Amino acid sequence: MRLVSALLILLATSQIATAQTKPEDAIKYRKSVYTVLLWNWMPLNAMMRGRIPFDADEFSRRADRVAALAPQLLEGFPPGSNEGAPTEAKAEIWTDFTDFSAKMKDLETESAALASIAKGGDEAAIKAQFAKTGGACKACHDKYKAE
Amino acid sequence: MRLVSALLILLATSQIATAQTKPEDAIKYRKSVYTVLLWNWMPLNAMMRGRIPFDADEFSRRADRVAALAPQLLEGFPPGSNEGAPTEAKAEIWTDFTDFSAKMKDLETESAALASIAKGGDEAAIKAQFAKTGGACKACHDKYKAE
Repeated sequence: MRLVSALLILLATSQIATAQTKPEDAIKYRKSVYTVLLWNWMPLNAMMRGRIPFDADEFSRRADRVAALAPQLLEGFPPGSNEGAPTEAKAEIWTDFTDFSAKMKDLETESAALASIAKGGDEAAIKAQFAKTGGACKACHDKYKAE
Repeated sequence: MRLVSALLILLATSQIATAQTKPEDAIKYRKSVYTVLLWNWMPLNAMMRGRIPFDADEFSRRADRVAALAPQLLEGFPPGSNEGAPTEAKAEIWTDFTDFSAKMKDLETESAALASIAKGGDEAAIKAQFAKTGGACKACHDKYKAE
């Protein structure tokens, strides 16, 4: 009986979640997370490529933001949000959601490591971890983002 | 001479920043921060109004996100970004930027307090601080956001 109650609560909760999230809202949300993420990523990229001077404090501040934003992406891809507004998200995301979720988890892990290493201020270590984090972005884009 | 060098560096840096930030990019960025902020705020609001059950962990997780996003707003309002793309930002933002910045700082302070109090799980204390945080949003919208 307790199990049945728990299942009913779970069902009710997921119905609330589903009812509240329209596909177009999820698409707008996830695009916004990517926009804010990229805004913070670009200065890191410019520092790593020597286009602007390396500033350890500024790098750390923005790496923290990237690490805080990465775990906010996945909830922007609920079932059914492959359409409803223009999106570059490929349908494969929802047919292979386990792999997609794992790739998102990789980004969380790598960006958290980048934020952590950035606090140390060791530019060589930061560069190595920056490359790994960029690799996590690319792995997902290559497979799941339309041209 | 050192002062002149410092001023030249400052000038060069601000020129880089100005050259890099197009008004339409700043507008897209700040709208995105608001979208992500609101996405996380809405469930807090629903809990506070009893529309969904209060979940202390979920509240805390999303309050942390709001507190991390609030300090990212101000850089989305560089000089000249009152036009270039549709925006609800009033021109008064740039004619009274000191007051606008102070109101943004209030939001940072109140949302940081909300995230901190949320970790305690005391629903009455959370409700009081949630109202203060909402008040900080409203104070800025009333004065600087077009209808």
